[in-house]
Amino acid sequence: MFSPLIDELMSALRCLPGVGPKSAQRMALQLLERDREGAGRLATALSNAVEGVGRCRLCRTLTEQDICGTCSNSKRDDSLLCVVETPADVLAIESAGTYQGKYFVLMGHLSPIDGIGPAEIGIDVLAQRLREEGIGELILATNPTVEGEATAHYIAELARGQGVKVSRIAHGVPLGGELEYIDGGTLAHAFSSRRAL
Amino acid sequence: MFSPLIDELMSALRCLPGVGPKSAQRMALQLLERDREGAGRLATALSNAVEGVGRCRLCRTLTEQDICGTCSNSKRDDSLLCVVETPADVLAIESAGTYQGKYFVLMGHLSPIDGIGPAEIGIDVLAQRLREEGIGELILATNPTVEGEATAHYIAELARGQGVKVSRIAHGVPLGGELEYIDGGTLAHAFSSRRAL
Repeated sequence: MFSPLIDELMSALRCLPGVGPKSAQRMALQLLERDREGAGRLATALSNAVEGVGRCRLCRTLTEQDICGTCSNSKRDDSLLCVVETPADVLAIESAGTYQGKYFVLMGHLSPIDGIGPAEIGIDVLAQRLREEGIGELILATNPTVEGEATAHYIAELARGQGVKVSRIAHGVPLGGELEYIDGGTLAHAFSSRRAL
Repeated sequence: MFSPLIDELMSALRCLPGVGPKSAQRMALQLLERDREGAGRLATALSNAVEGVGRCRLCRTLTEQDICGTCSNSKRDDSLLCVVETPADVLAIESAGTYQGKYFVLMGHLSPIDGIGPAEIGIDVLAQRLREEGIGELILATNPTVEGEATAHYIAELARGQGVKVSRIAHGVPLGGELEYIDGGTLAHAFSSRRAL
């Protein structure tokens, strides 16, 4: 219905998560009617990022440098390594502001049904680091989902085999949460993981 | 927190309507982790559209041609001209499938408080067309908002001054709507615009 270039823009916008045909139409028209400068800037940012952003050689997170800012930061504790699933998880932990060690970003989790095995989430890189660096403790912070737990279990076995101390972040009732609204699985876990006072 | 190219991409994504910081982060990471091809295609589509898409010389809608597909379609009725606010309105009317005339797209509405006067919405182009073409009826389909009504009123005066027949699309209870859920303004309008049977 619209002209070819506009139709192509609408269809290209559909690659964004959560954007359906109606949102794509609204976005395309809004950009062309009112914010061509922003659209130009977005096009440049996309090209630059697609071209420039790769993986950190040490922690596998997304970065345009060979080694990312966190890995090259000499003020951080080299003896602690925290394993997370995505760069967004790193951001969440950094926002909490207490962890001072380094990270290892799997960029996913084990999921044999989708063809994602140890090689796809960089377990070889992690194993090499565990062998060669003097890592004192490996903290597993994968998501508490079936796949995340399986991944944590797999990595724990690997680390134990190399004599590295492994821990898992605590799961239970979140601070400020009301028991009334917490799901059964979380509550059961909170009871089975109770600590002596 | 992320590397500069990723931060720049997140900030550029904020120009899209309805995209806040959290959505922008999700979009940027998803594109870089899983859909670089789509991101590249989006960058190209944006550049092409920003560069190529202009306005139709006759109806002012967004198009990359000098005269858009609807205006150059000889099968459509030249004697009917429908005035709408945006290209999305044209799409909505076309989807209804009954109107066979041509369009004039204001790309906005009169809004003196935002500095949008008759010149900004192409009233001069419309006035010239009313003078020079043999338009039998001008149908005003601007939105039933305060600004839309004011714009319709302004254009109606202009057309009457040039001896062109003017009409306004009907407003009232939508088909399939239940009276119980219709707002008071619409119901009042539906009563005052009642037709004899």
